[in-house]
Amino acid sequence: MADIEQVNSPNTAPDVRGREADEPRASRIARFDTPLKLDAGVELAPVQIAYNTYGTLNADRSNAVLICHALTGDHHAASDNPVTGKGGWWETLIGPGKPIDTDRYFIISSNVLGSCMGTTGPASTNPATGQPWGLSFPVITIRDMVRAQAMLLDHLGIDTLFAVVGGSMGGMQVLQWASSYPERVFAALPIACATRHSAQNIAFHEVGRQAIMADPDWRGGRYLLDGTNPRRGLAVARMGAHITYLSDAALHRKFGRKYQDRATPTFSFDADFQVESYLRHQGSSFVERFDANSYLYLTRAMDYFDLAADCGGVLANAFKDTPTRFCVISFTSDWLFPTPDSRATVHALNAGGARVSFAEIVTDKGHDAFLLDEPELFAIVRGFLDGAGKARGLNAAQPREAR
Amino acid sequence: MADIEQVNSPNTAPDVRGREADEPRASRIARFDTPLKLDAGVELAPVQIAYNTYGTLNADRSNAVLICHALTGDHHAASDNPVTGKGGWWETLIGPGKPIDTDRYFIISSNVLGSCMGTTGPASTNPATGQPWGLSFPVITIRDMVRAQAMLLDHLGIDTLFAVVGGSMGGMQVLQWASSYPERVFAALPIACATRHSAQNIAFHEVGRQAIMADPDWRGGRYLLDGTNPRRGLAVARMGAHITYLSDAALHRKFGRKYQDRATPTFSFDADFQVESYLRHQGSSFVERFDANSYLYLTRAMDYFDLAADCGGVLANAFKDTPTRFCVISFTSDWLFPTPDSRATVHALNAGGARVSFAEIVTDKGHDAFLLDEPELFAIVRGFLDGAGKARGLNAAQPREAR
Repeated sequence: MADIEQVNSPNTAPDVRGREADEPRASRIARFDTPLKLDAGVELAPVQIAYNTYGTLNADRSNAVLICHALTGDHHAASDNPVTGKGGWWETLIGPGKPIDTDRYFIISSNVLGSCMGTTGPASTNPATGQPWGLSFPVITIRDMVRAQAMLLDHLGIDTLFAVVGGSMGGMQVLQWASSYPERVFAALPIACATRHSAQNIAFHEVGRQAIMADPDWRGGRYLLDGTNPRRGLAVARMGAHITYLSDAALHRKFGRKYQDRATPTFSFDADFQVESYLRHQGSSFVERFDANSYLYLTRAMDYFDLAADCGGVLANAFKDTPTRFCVISFTSDWLFPTPDSRATVHALNAGGARVSFAEIVTDKGHDAFLLDEPELFAIVRGFLDGAGKARGLNAAQPREAR
Repeated sequence: MADIEQVNSPNTAPDVRGREADEPRASRIARFDTPLKLDAGVELAPVQIAYNTYGTLNADRSNAVLICHALTGDHHAASDNPVTGKGGWWETLIGPGKPIDTDRYFIISSNVLGSCMGTTGPASTNPATGQPWGLSFPVITIRDMVRAQAMLLDHLGIDTLFAVVGGSMGGMQVLQWASSYPERVFAALPIACATRHSAQNIAFHEVGRQAIMADPDWRGGRYLLDGTNPRRGLAVARMGAHITYLSDAALHRKFGRKYQDRATPTFSFDADFQVESYLRHQGSSFVERFDANSYLYLTRAMDYFDLAADCGGVLANAFKDTPTRFCVISFTSDWLFPTPDSRATVHALNAGGARVSFAEIVTDKGHDAFLLDEPELFAIVRGFLDGAGKARGLNAAQPREAR
């Protein structure tokens, strides 16, 4: 199972999860008292953003790359994750000499609004009450996440990003960045995503949310206060979602109908099949690292994402006369955000007059391919950023052995 | 939503569900004291089978058609369902002058072993204890279901079936019939199914089972005794499964991103989107008509289904020198049992020397197309049965107006 994401399973008690939300380890923290205006029509203050940076900002402040993470990701993109003890989730892509080269670029990876790893979200303490926000946290959107990231860039004194890169929900943020702040984005790399969440994807999210809210330990969202954790509901939500991240072919190749530690079926409801055992592990380990309410809020933000609706129903208007150059990437076996979704994005960009290239990568690894060892992805990201870097006037990195 | 199955929602208390399992309404009942030998290596006795018949058995006893139902189906194929108050689930296909013509054929529709609508299953009373079987019911297989159906045919004095017809889990039974009792099946119509359950399908089933077993009201399977009902878990299981019965395209066509009874989002976790409201309805209405433990047992039977494994790993051996004629049908948008699964069945039948025709029907309705108003399906079933009837020497029905 080398190329399917696995997560360690530290036993994290509710108070530990709460602490991670307020005082994230191995993170930089930016705090803002200026209210953040949200799409829901309310203002959120104060706002804390947890982030990490890799590489060095150049004198022109022109080499900043923003990494946008997916639903259950975090800002530990290229450094060890203090919760799981594992390496960064995109360290295959980010590092010295790697496609997103820390020798050339200044990389900013921030935890999204609504998450539970240090940026303000439902697991954070509401200073006004001294208690976790829980369901009193306002429902947020992808645009709100991007607004918060823009606040962080202002704070860091970065006017224009050289590039914004992300997959899945991260790709939605990339598209939102290009639409909301075209002058601040030189190059955009939306991977395995779409300009709107489909009915089927909303449906899958809704099942996950219902699984969480059906768990009596969820307690109407007040579980952190009550010292409980809706681990069964959250595990079921993760199991269902995890299937959608893979592909039928990958599951067949990895597991097929092979039994787990036995030669014949037990004729029981034990995890006879390897695929059952694998899924159960995915569910139970996820519960140790993620907050159930954050899962509700972030899935909801994805559901609400619809760039065309924000632009009078005309998707091309989202990118009209954009100065940004784009590289759109999809995977053949991704059925959560299938290639036609990316083609629709490309057509809208074309209609908006954008400079855009598009790559569909052949793989059986499904949606999760953007997180896995996918050499063609690495080559495309490297090539696109190299070309954009030349256009931006960024100097090439010194040969590593010369330093 | 005319072509997506909807179910009424009578409020059925646990004791009512228990009674339906033991004393099904609007049903014929056959009782057997002879033990049924199960694949799990145990014997089950007594066994009760609930069934319905439509049409008249001819003097030669050569016009019997067995209808095999899907996971949550029942024996009310062409007559009103006493639990939901709705018409039969396949009355589009079965009736006077219809493709499965009650003027020509004697149709037998039986509730499968392990179900909850009158054939012995976990919701039935175990006569040895006077209590519901619950999890003490043995785990069963598709082959066990077919063995029970063969007992029923013996009881009815029917040696050879003119045809066996079914979709999804019903199609698995059709294939098992042809493999286990080739001399007893003149013609076989497996629709939207496969000769083995895929890793992805096992995975989806496992998520559903975990959702049920995570519900505290499941009580280790003893909920009927305790007077509870794991309705939240079962509803979540159904919601997730229901997505797999449809297609991305059908969900987009029916619901898209349309809001339910509102013009703008509520920025909440209410069912803002029509697709959410629809799914919630599917979940809550299912709970009123189906038993949670039966859901566990029947999904498990599907998981274990693997005809090749039963024949030394060579699928063609399952049909070697079969006298049965086959018509295999798939639907273009069915991603639960996609067309390649049906093609694999056809290739195995060819390798076994079978007489087989194959049709892939173009539709966006997904797996559920076999239950819906699908004229091409009707025409193919009619044509295949007409041809087989001629070969079987069945007289054509009298023109209806002549009688």
